[in-house]
Amino acid sequence: MIDLVADLGEGFGAYSIGDDQQLLEIVSSANIACGFHAGDPDIMDRTVAECMRRGVGIGAHPSFPDLRGFGRRAMDLSADEVRTDTVYQVGSLAAFAAYHGGVVSHVAPHGKLGNLVAVRPDYAESVAQAVAGVDPRMVIVAQEGELAQAARRHGLQVAIVGIVDRAYQDDGTLVPRGQPGAVLHDAREIVDRTVRMACEGTIVSSSGASLQISPDTILLHGDNPGAVGLARLIRKELEAAGVRIAPVGDVLAAKQEAA
Amino acid sequence: MIDLVADLGEGFGAYSIGDDQQLLEIVSSANIACGFHAGDPDIMDRTVAECMRRGVGIGAHPSFPDLRGFGRRAMDLSADEVRTDTVYQVGSLAAFAAYHGGVVSHVAPHGKLGNLVAVRPDYAESVAQAVAGVDPRMVIVAQEGELAQAARRHGLQVAIVGIVDRAYQDDGTLVPRGQPGAVLHDAREIVDRTVRMACEGTIVSSSGASLQISPDTILLHGDNPGAVGLARLIRKELEAAGVRIAPVGDVLAAKQEAA
Amino acid sequence: MIDLVADLGEGFGAYSIGDDQQLLEIVSSANIACGFHAGDPDIMDRTVAECMRRGVGIGAHPSFPDLRGFGRRAMDLSADEVRTDTVYQVGSLAAFAAYHGGVVSHVAPHGKLGNLVAVRPDYAESVAQAVAGVDPRMVIVAQEGELAQAARRHGLQVAIVGIVDRAYQDDGTLVPRGQPGAVLHDAREIVDRTVRMACEGTIVSSSGASLQISPDTILLHGDNPGAVGLARLIRKELEAAGVRIAPVGDVLAAKQEAA
Amino acid sequence: MIDLVADLGEGFGAYSIGDDQQLLEIVSSANIACGFHAGDPDIMDRTVAECMRRGVGIGAHPSFPDLRGFGRRAMDLSADEVRTDTVYQVGSLAAFAAYHGGVVSHVAPHGKLGNLVAVRPDYAESVAQAVAGVDPRMVIVAQEGELAQAARRHGLQVAIVGIVDRAYQDDGTLVPRGQPGAVLHDAREIVDRTVRMACEGTIVSSSGASLQISPDTILLHGDNPGAVGLARLIRKELEAAGVRIAPVGDVLAAKQEAA
Repeated sequence: MIDLVADLGEGFGAYSIGDDQQLLEIVSSANIACGFHAGDPDIMDRTVAECMRRGVGIGAHPSFPDLRGFGRRAMDLSADEVRTDTVYQVGSLAAFAAYHGGVVSHVAPHGKLGNLVAVRPDYAESVAQAVAGVDPRMVIVAQEGELAQAARRHGLQVAIVGIVDRAYQDDGTLVPRGQPGAVLHDAREIVDRTVRMACEGTIVSSSGASLQISPDTILLHGDNPGAVGLARLIRKELEAAGVRIAPVGDVLAAKQEAA
Repeated sequence: MIDLVADLGEGFGAYSIGDDQQLLEIVSSANIACGFHAGDPDIMDRTVAECMRRGVGIGAHPSFPDLRGFGRRAMDLSADEVRTDTVYQVGSLAAFAAYHGGVVSHVAPHGKLGNLVAVRPDYAESVAQAVAGVDPRMVIVAQEGELAQAARRHGLQVAIVGIVDRAYQDDGTLVPRGQPGAVLHDAREIVDRTVRMACEGTIVSSSGASLQISPDTILLHGDNPGAVGLARLIRKELEAAGVRIAPVGDVLAAKQEAA
Repeated sequence: MIDLVADLGEGFGAYSIGDDQQLLEIVSSANIACGFHAGDPDIMDRTVAECMRRGVGIGAHPSFPDLRGFGRRAMDLSADEVRTDTVYQVGSLAAFAAYHGGVVSHVAPHGKLGNLVAVRPDYAESVAQAVAGVDPRMVIVAQEGELAQAARRHGLQVAIVGIVDRAYQDDGTLVPRGQPGAVLHDAREIVDRTVRMACEGTIVSSSGASLQISPDTILLHGDNPGAVGLARLIRKELEAAGVRIAPVGDVLAAKQEAA
Repeated sequence: MIDLVADLGEGFGAYSIGDDQQLLEIVSSANIACGFHAGDPDIMDRTVAECMRRGVGIGAHPSFPDLRGFGRRAMDLSADEVRTDTVYQVGSLAAFAAYHGGVVSHVAPHGKLGNLVAVRPDYAESVAQAVAGVDPRMVIVAQEGELAQAARRHGLQVAIVGIVDRAYQDDGTLVPRGQPGAVLHDAREIVDRTVRMACEGTIVSSSGASLQISPDTILLHGDNPGAVGLARLIRKELEAAGVRIAPVGDVLAAKQEAA
């Protein structure tokens, strides 16, 4: 069993980015923008309502407060500002979830904040503390790194996200963007890697080594027509391989039961 | 028993307005800005923490999204935008309350939105719907008017707020600002009116008639040194008259028990 | 001779709206967003640079400060706030024009502000005062109405804009949106009306009367593929009819010379 | 002859910081916030009008776009974003200057941007390029460093700012904040250093060496009552020592004439 997740609700006012309608047919969980890098109350309301209607897991996608930079520019916030910005954003989404009869199942930091919480212990601690303080039933979605560790220290469940269009190094971290071969473009290769990850729990690193990796969720993209087509293909081939697609909370519950 | 409430947490970043430290010693409830007209995540965090420490009731103070205008300028939002803006703001504060082990006890719209929900049925309906949808245990704090009625329709508890530095008309509404005598300035008169409201449930209207009025909470101001002194005096004289000061939730519970 | 103008530079950060590249091949003037309803410094810089490269007239498109509402929601600003917001926005665009060796040729208020300056004398006065104070060589682009009158009082040149996809009433104002037949959809009809306006100075009103109208500029749209195609057709047929397309400043200069 | 400059117009909407009225009686130049870290169109308008009335030089104080952080938090902008943000902010202030019949005499980057342009060649180049492109008559106000050098490369005049409440190292740079003795607090010492700088062109470094320093302008503060008193004392003692106080443009002109 595995979760398929994508960033959703990333429009703002009259602006839109990504094809949410199509992605909602494919994913089992959504990382929903909370107004700091994208998203506004109307869009959050509509996106949460759609997720509830389709049984898609609702996740908060907190960011640095930088709408113009779409949360991709580093900002030198204090660790305490990261904590309070996270509380604020998670809370705003939780209210929409409550309004529509649901809950926020998970939290996945966005963009530059997402990069930094993987390597900065202070920011990781802030996000974990914020989530544990607001609602300890929320799952942290992250790659292995500082945030995953901080979350476990705070008693939070962690769902490891597999990045299927990026090359992995032998230590299980991604080949940094900018290095040759960091980003994969061949759809067939990406689909095959995804199915192997989900079925066998392995991935071939950039050096050719076979790594053990057992992601709970796979990150899909939808910001161009090709991406949506690829996302759809990934879901189809996972199902053909007998993998059940389910929201991240169900995936973790099944794993616990199995353990 | 009566509640004393004031607007708090209305700074932003490096800016501050009002003397929160002094007011927190006087009030039993706080209307806390949620980032749309004032307030930011750090300020909300600190204000909520202080309220918890002192047993002051935590209320959300949602507004039109207009930091520069401090929420005092009308904006032609759709009713649906008012609903989703309210869900968002209430949710962000609720997360800070949860983080510090508390809950949001009440919601009191700010500034121009506060004026409009008293007279516009569509906006009143939006706010009531938002609050009922997010958490129906939250109390609506308002003067009699459209919001109070909409709240009751949605099964929400309503706490009526007494405005002690304003003249009342015979129908129980305020003399509009700008009319002569609309705003009272004499501290003695204001204190006496407050005590009479709290003890006898009456107020003398601008025409000299004695009105029945039984507010659950009294709105205090703190935006100038005189205001804080007056607020302190009001609390002192209410206590001297044997009136117990308690958060709005306790006031409503006591009233229900008595009924 | 006539000008063709469209709203350009209305993206924000990672967001885009409209097909600026295609429109820039068609228009002779641009209304460029100044950051209040859309646009940011990077987009303004790129849009102004493109206009300079192609000889497209550079116009400021000031708005209410409401990015989320795209400047389409009324805000109850004081007349003085409208004046200072206009000075600010026009100035920011003028700096990009200067940077690229050009000037701002005209000012055309956007969205709800654009609607209101046509009918509110106080807002019209504010915009005219702002433009006259910053640089009296800038032209005001407007329909006949309060802004056009205020601009003339302040000694500013006025370019009347023809709206070719809307029905006109006998008094020369537009049939209000929402009334049947207010918006024209037939491309052939729109093109024919445009050519007649430009060549004969007449338009047929919704009652069938022939109105004298002699616009200096025609407003084109580009927010959907059909709109760009229609804009292209309008330009082609105007040129086929022997109408020269030129920036609004040239149109006014030619008119003055002829007079 | 020397200029006295302070940061002004740093309120926002209902918020204020600093005592602008008192500082305007003391300074000969103002660094005026342009809306990115502080300031809004109304405040800019009023501040520029006051400067014109009193003959105080009008300077732009561009910043990172971070109202909540008051421009004190680093943001990882591209050099091009720094350039376009600077064009935008300088242009907005220039429009208010033009509106009131004046010009922007100088540009002095604020806060964290001000720190970074002193040491980052790319940001320094961006600001110099922006100012040279918008209006090469504007003076750059800076300490010696990357920005001063970039400005000279672009043919801009540079006014060196003396920081009188900070200790200098032997190389003419400031002792970094956080090191013991970095910030001076004794009013008498600060005043004496200022007078010696202005009259003799020397300052005693933290190691006791006498440095040649010949600032064109002295930065004063006004964010607390003591600061305003100190600023007033500095002006009084400079005048008593026969130093003429004049806007930065006049100081540079006199220097050129003397050379």
